[in-house]
Amino acid sequence: MGRTLTEKILADHLVDGDIETGEEIGIAVDQTIAHDLTGTMAWLQFEALGLDEVQVEVAGQHCDHQTYQPDFKVSDDHRFLRSAAGTYGAYFARPGTGILHQVHKENFTAPGKTLIGADSHTPTAGGLGSLGIGTGGLDVATAMGGAPFYLDVPEVVNVRLEGELSAWATAKDVILELLRRYSVKFGVDKVFEYTGPGVESLSAHERTVITNMGTELGATTSVFPSDERTKAFFQRLERPEDYVELAPDPDAEYDDEIVVDLGEIEPLISCPSMPDNVVPVREVSGIAVDQVLVGSCTNGAYEDILPVAKMLDGREVAKRTEAVVAPASKQASEMLARNGFTAELMAAGVNVSEATCGACIGAGHVPASDSVSVRTFNRNFEGRSGMEEDAVYLCSPEVAAATALTGEITDPRDLDIDIEAPGFEYPERYIGASESDIIMPDEAVDDGLVKGPNIDEVPLKDPLGATLGGPALLKMPDNITTDHVIPATQEVSVYRSNVPKLSEFTLKRVDETFAARAAEADGGFLVAGENYGQGSSREHAALCPMYLGVHAVLAQSFARIHKSNLLNFGLLPLTIDEATYERIDQGDEIEIVDDAVDAVESGQETLTIRVDDEWEATVGLDANERERDLLAAGGKLPHTRQQFADAGENA
Amino acid sequence: MGRTLTEKILADHLVDGDIETGEEIGIAVDQTIAHDLTGTMAWLQFEALGLDEVQVEVAGQHCDHQTYQPDFKVSDDHRFLRSAAGTYGAYFARPGTGILHQVHKENFTAPGKTLIGADSHTPTAGGLGSLGIGTGGLDVATAMGGAPFYLDVPEVVNVRLEGELSAWATAKDVILELLRRYSVKFGVDKVFEYTGPGVESLSAHERTVITNMGTELGATTSVFPSDERTKAFFQRLERPEDYVELAPDPDAEYDDEIVVDLGEIEPLISCPSMPDNVVPVREVSGIAVDQVLVGSCTNGAYEDILPVAKMLDGREVAKRTEAVVAPASKQASEMLARNGFTAELMAAGVNVSEATCGACIGAGHVPASDSVSVRTFNRNFEGRSGMEEDAVYLCSPEVAAATALTGEITDPRDLDIDIEAPGFEYPERYIGASESDIIMPDEAVDDGLVKGPNIDEVPLKDPLGATLGGPALLKMPDNITTDHVIPATQEVSVYRSNVPKLSEFTLKRVDETFAARAAEADGGFLVAGENYGQGSSREHAALCPMYLGVHAVLAQSFARIHKSNLLNFGLLPLTIDEATYERIDQGDEIEIVDDAVDAVESGQETLTIRVDDEWEATVGLDANERERDLLAAGGKLPHTRQQFADAGENA
Repeated sequence: MGRTLTEKILADHLVDGDIETGEEIGIAVDQTIAHDLTGTMAWLQFEALGLDEVQVEVAGQHCDHQTYQPDFKVSDDHRFLRSAAGTYGAYFARPGTGILHQVHKENFTAPGKTLIGADSHTPTAGGLGSLGIGTGGLDVATAMGGAPFYLDVPEVVNVRLEGELSAWATAKDVILELLRRYSVKFGVDKVFEYTGPGVESLSAHERTVITNMGTELGATTSVFPSDERTKAFFQRLERPEDYVELAPDPDAEYDDEIVVDLGEIEPLISCPSMPDNVVPVREVSGIAVDQVLVGSCTNGAYEDILPVAKMLDGREVAKRTEAVVAPASKQASEMLARNGFTAELMAAGVNVSEATCGACIGAGHVPASDSVSVRTFNRNFEGRSGMEEDAVYLCSPEVAAATALTGEITDPRDLDIDIEAPGFEYPERYIGASESDIIMPDEAVDDGLVKGPNIDEVPLKDPLGATLGGPALLKMPDNITTDHVIPATQEVSVYRSNVPKLSEFTLKRVDETFAARAAEADGGFLVAGENYGQGSSREHAALCPMYLGVHAVLAQSFARIHKSNLLNFGLLPLTIDEATYERIDQGDEIEIVDDAVDAVESGQETLTIRVDDEWEATVGLDANERERDLLAAGGKLPHTRQQFADAGENA
Repeated sequence: MGRTLTEKILADHLVDGDIETGEEIGIAVDQTIAHDLTGTMAWLQFEALGLDEVQVEVAGQHCDHQTYQPDFKVSDDHRFLRSAAGTYGAYFARPGTGILHQVHKENFTAPGKTLIGADSHTPTAGGLGSLGIGTGGLDVATAMGGAPFYLDVPEVVNVRLEGELSAWATAKDVILELLRRYSVKFGVDKVFEYTGPGVESLSAHERTVITNMGTELGATTSVFPSDERTKAFFQRLERPEDYVELAPDPDAEYDDEIVVDLGEIEPLISCPSMPDNVVPVREVSGIAVDQVLVGSCTNGAYEDILPVAKMLDGREVAKRTEAVVAPASKQASEMLARNGFTAELMAAGVNVSEATCGACIGAGHVPASDSVSVRTFNRNFEGRSGMEEDAVYLCSPEVAAATALTGEITDPRDLDIDIEAPGFEYPERYIGASESDIIMPDEAVDDGLVKGPNIDEVPLKDPLGATLGGPALLKMPDNITTDHVIPATQEVSVYRSNVPKLSEFTLKRVDETFAARAAEADGGFLVAGENYGQGSSREHAALCPMYLGVHAVLAQSFARIHKSNLLNFGLLPLTIDEATYERIDQGDEIEIVDDAVDAVESGQETLTIRVDDEWEATVGLDANERERDLLAAGGKLPHTRQQFADAGENA
């Protein structure tokens, strides 16, 4: 039986387990990336691992989310990240160099490599045949240390592309079409592998647009074969040596197959407030638009902005509409400037920004009240723009440009002017700012780690104790999100490198007194209903309760990623039934009757708790052997640290 | 006796009083400008005046301080400003168009015109022979309504320029030299009028650099004659019709004279943390620099950035140094891009920003801890950068570029490379984004005022009551600043258009309970020591106490501008002696024994207060007739509104 491309790359990197769908495996990591919101904790964790240098081929540290540096704490974070990258042998892309996925793609992504990134859009690399997977900062820290990356072997879906895109239809519309058809949940635990005759009609860049936004399908990652188009791209990038040809076997077997006829795709748009709320642009045309934003890791490359510049050249943005173009990399910015397009964009009334994630994460250009924002970005979750009741539409650069010209949502085919589809075009050759803006490990400029006053050491949990007891510190209802546990607002985010301070905000939205009470108690428990920890993959939502002394979370059910984060930080995720949930009151004294260490290490799937010394209940612990090892050690960080120490002694 | 240029322009616009040094006069206003932090309140006040449209030749509304739009409240402010400008007949420069002084200069500044701006660097216009004066938003609001602008006739200082600048010495160094010699207080109540043979050696642009930063001398304004160089500049601007020749009479008499030999000026730098802390660059060369910022209303024009681009072309910013260039206008950005300089700046490792005030007001690129920042800006007050303990140096673009290349403070004459002084150069012709980015009154796009939920009406005070009494709400020590009264932090600033909400922060830094207590009491008094209200010209520091019901401030002395603001908002600024200050306790009941209306209107210079019905003291009221009229009416806004209403009835 032939192998899929995904299977081949996984097999090439397999260090633990067997490649069977749904089973956990460990893979070797070739490359890692992190950005300024995830990197500080990753490097503090790396520091705690006690190693001298990173063990992967390429580790990259970018500063893209907070390029405006609105607070000295942000600037201190950037300063620390430069010093950490230099100290431990990673490259450092200075603030303003661009968005990690674009900068990494321009400079380091390579077919066949595994890339683990502390950002959900790491699958961008899949457009070039690299297996890019987004995860939390702790996984990046341990991967940089040389530890395997663990994942459940995903299903592989064959996305068979046929035909060719027609004029005005773009790669963005391909992924919008998949979202329209299959929703934001369809891709969970799946890899989308693109095949078929339509593949060669797409440039390597267009492929990365599709794999980037495959994240919105919920996919583990997406991947294209590496072929002549890929080869040509690497030649343009002046990295021909990084190219290798990669393809699935002709008789590869897939878990599922989807067929997309590129020729049938038309300009699409995702309506508020979910990426899969997709309709043809014409269905919503005419809606007045206050803001048009072009950029992001999805559509911020030179190749994405060029059509916008061509469409606006000699024309003018509608007076009622603010238009901002934020390139995804300074290399893109430089090429646009050098080829004359930046001046034309400006003349047309566009505000051309520095290279930044910026508005995509609500860090700038927040929409006004009762306004409509049309963006080439990848997410329009309610409130993500920084405005709670926002109305954000997602579309291709061409649709965005047409909309900027008219001031209302516009299918470019309906423009009232004589205009040709700009089509896809590469720059003649890639030139750019990388040389001056990326500080390679051998150019490091700092003498050791530079920690501003807001940067604290990462806390390390002690190994699991045999006896666990304490009060039910907080009883919560169903559907507590990671935003409840640790909000993502600017006010709170500036403390991401300072766990003691950040912990003061823990669960504040549920109970203002929680953090103080938890810190006072000598250990305790959280109690919750269904779906505890839904939302983002924010590790701080496990790290901060851990810092405050929480032993375990007793919940009726857990969101998958947060459960994994609890295990990684040494907190027991214990399931309780509804009756038990109802019976426990906040303040009750809870004791785990079993010897916790024995129970965890021996694989016990249930434990007994005793409440207020009055009644007992059975709680569940669903964890595999590796996860139980983490729990016993006090979490992944102390566990990996010990492994590295042992390996060092045995070496 | 011949007249100075200042006297000529004042005389041309005189509508009230006589031009005698120190006496108050009223002048007609030709042009006004405001920015996003001052404009919202100015327009709300204009709305309260009840007029249909602005009465000045040109009124401009810019969005430059908060171009990153980090909060929907900022975006709502921008949206409101556009609607207000359109509704009342002002031009609106979209966010990203640039800094008000540069954009106004490029498009509207004209010799001989009076310009009143709600920003302290309004004297920029003086470089083109316009009399530009910075003031508060309320003065701009009433001026837009057609009311005269009142000021004390300043002394006129003749700054006689001789010789010519040598290579590497710039206009920035001329104003730094004046600051070095004369300090930040020397210019209070003075106009600096530039004369002498050196004038013609300076381009019109260079002159605006000098007049812009004349603000740091404390000057009312600065002005250059309008001559052949000015004429040539207006031709380049494609506004030759706006040029008129203007000069002082040959036998003009000045109050003071300063002589500056341009030929003796060398590269200078202002050291932390005051603009007059100036030394030759060579005295501090070698200090390691973390951040170099080029831009601001002082040095952000095309002509300022061009030398930086030339110096960095083909070279590279030191790896240890972050360099940001933020042009002062999109027109400058466009010309730089069109002429190839933007690409070279980027290639050299510069982060090229959108046009913004940005970092100059601490709204971005805040320095990291223990770092050194070198800027082409105009102010380095401690903490202004957004970082409390900052180390900010101010210098010319050429010194900034040399510093970026070496990573340490560097006099460009000492550069270790073969480099020529770029010298001054204009673009071949001014081209640019104004047409698309400035929305002229006849292009207005909004149907009436658009007020987001955070934008509230401006409160109007009732006319002064005859009987004033209430508790001493707060007793404060000496040197309470406007930052104590209303902080300038981002968290607070977003409420500048919402007085009820903003008022909750009033004097919070002195006493957290003040605002709530004041709102609860039915009127009351503030008690302070010496120099109450020092610091910025922030009107909200008077407006918010007014909103909370404060009748009067009893202080041993007042800072000049804040006293004027108290009068403008209808609060009595009453002076007390030290014994009275000592004797009043917070909470004491205070009553003004006199009939307050009579006392104010009749010109009484002292009043009697009775404290706790036990003892009496004499307090002083120093106010001229016009100011007493304001007090009686409840402040300048109700007073002007009544005047306009009366004029309407009599018309």
